Amino acid sequence: MKYVVTGCAGFVGSTLVDRLVADGHHVVGLDDFSTGREAFVRQACEAPGFELVRGDLRDPGLALDAALGADAIFHLAANADVRHGTEHPTRDLEQNTIVTVNVLEAARRNGVRDFLFSSTGSVYGEAPVVPTPEDAPMPVQTSLYGASKVAAEGFIQAYAEGFGIRALIFRFVSLLGERYTHGHVIDFVRQLREHPDRLHVLGNGRQRKSYLYVGDCIEAMLTALRAAPGKVGVYNLGAGEYCQVIDSVGWICETLRVTPTLTFSGGDRGWIGDNPFIFLDCARMRGLGWEPTMTIREAVVRTVGWLQEHDA
Amino acid sequence: MKYVVTGCAGFVGSTLVDRLVADGHHVVGLDDFSTGREAFVRQACEAPGFELVRGDLRDPGLALDAALGADAIFHLAANADVRHGTEHPTRDLEQNTIVTVNVLEAARRNGVRDFLFSSTGSVYGEAPVVPTPEDAPMPVQTSLYGASKVAAEGFIQAYAEGFGIRALIFRFVSLLGERYTHGHVIDFVRQLREHPDRLHVLGNGRQRKSYLYVGDCIEAMLTALRAAPGKVGVYNLGAGEYCQVIDSVGWICETLRVTPTLTFSGGDRGWIGDNPFIFLDCARMRGLGWEPTMTIREAVVRTVGWLQEHDA
Repeated sequence: MKYVVTGCAGFVGSTLVDRLVADGHHVVGLDDFSTGREAFVRQACEAPGFELVRGDLRDPGLALDAALGADAIFHLAANADVRHGTEHPTRDLEQNTIVTVNVLEAARRNGVRDFLFSSTGSVYGEAPVVPTPEDAPMPVQTSLYGASKVAAEGFIQAYAEGFGIRALIFRFVSLLGERYTHGHVIDFVRQLREHPDRLHVLGNGRQRKSYLYVGDCIEAMLTALRAAPGKVGVYNLGAGEYCQVIDSVGWICETLRVTPTLTFSGGDRGWIGDNPFIFLDCARMRGLGWEPTMTIREAVVRTVGWLQEHDA
Repeated sequence: MKYVVTGCAGFVGSTLVDRLVADGHHVVGLDDFSTGREAFVRQACEAPGFELVRGDLRDPGLALDAALGADAIFHLAANADVRHGTEHPTRDLEQNTIVTVNVLEAARRNGVRDFLFSSTGSVYGEAPVVPTPEDAPMPVQTSLYGASKVAAEGFIQAYAEGFGIRALIFRFVSLLGERYTHGHVIDFVRQLREHPDRLHVLGNGRQRKSYLYVGDCIEAMLTALRAAPGKVGVYNLGAGEYCQVIDSVGWICETLRVTPTLTFSGGDRGWIGDNPFIFLDCARMRGLGWEPTMTIREAVVRTVGWLQEHDA
């Protein structure tokens, strides 16, 4: 098979590329290296089945050329910074919504059969139902990031209906594991490296969040590609549990062998648009035969280990 | 008050402008006259309180200048052609989603308090619950138009959360009344003017749709502006009933005094992405004290009368 992976030098993209190349596929990877890392594609670049294209997907020609003859596109490129959205109000629209339509156009014009998309549990806003199923009540968006992703989802669904492309949309919780590059675990590890005796936590530390190990996420996408019925499939992806921020602080400190004094910014949210409780109902994905293999605690410990080895 | 109305020369926009001007407000109207009509703003242009700005809202500077000192923006400008979306796949993104973010930026940078938006019942796709409430299960989009509007809604909600603008989002059914310019009633009236003895209907004629008289729609928006609580309000707007396409054919023929032979393209949809059953639950809007004043039949008859007088 020929697969296109956008955001191929990112955390998830590069992990997926390594897996697809190992499985013997021809993979074209696209990245602008704005947040992607050279080191993450080094291994893939040595494989004959991998082709790296450097460029900005805001240029519609980039994906168009790359998708020639492709069987499926994994569209993972995105601005993944939820927290600072309000500092650059149009970035999410440009990098997440408009770029998705550029990649959809590439799929349509090249007759690509499958379009796989990394969406987010943030599309549920502050969900009134937890664990949140895919058919939760229509949400009110609370972040530009969530808005840009739910916007992209809608265009993908309309392309599926209008042009016969099969759409697989994955609503991720936050991911953990090797090549993890941003989020609260790295923030905490960096703080503790600088000052092992103190740690500042945004919010009151009781925000409840779910996570998923990156390897489990890749396995879910490949399972859905193989087994999902219908022309549009929307799948939540998360661990079967949640933890409090304060739990993960404990696991991180244990792994780093530090006992800092904690301070809290207070309030039930870490920032404007932060969601105090994210926990997704993943029964639909489990129904395709997938199961996460790692607990959140195991994933946090593994992530901290990787950050220590790779000088976060 | 100073109000900005985008799409001010359209069906709804021009009706709203006349009302706001009559109520003594200062109104800046924007239109690119791609589908808006000179005749619809002729009356407003004679009033001292009205200022017309010609231009394309894809230019971010246009709304930015117009919104200086505005109390509220009614963002009604849109590509409203649901049916032919797949013939120009990026038009809905550009004219409905990106333009909305341009207007939101104008609101944010000018400190505008209220942002009112003409969304659509199409955002529900093929709703599993009918009559469909605002918190229906998260839909799958079936048209580029619906996708572009749900995308715009998300950005509006995120701006409300992030920047403190109050957002009022109105999900319209199809509107009828004076200045009606496109939709099935005009298609039928035109066909019957050319050949009073025959009428071709898309689909099997049993598609069930709800409608609303434009005056009732304007009244609803002004009621919500006055009475809606909270920072984000989403309101369905439609009549308290639905009809079949074949019912409206009867009312149109009766008004035109013709008895054509009917032919049907067949199937339960008129076109790709057509929704065979649209009927919105408007209890939330009624809860603010609003009631539609006209039945669908009355609105259809009134529309046909206007089309006859104005040489559709």
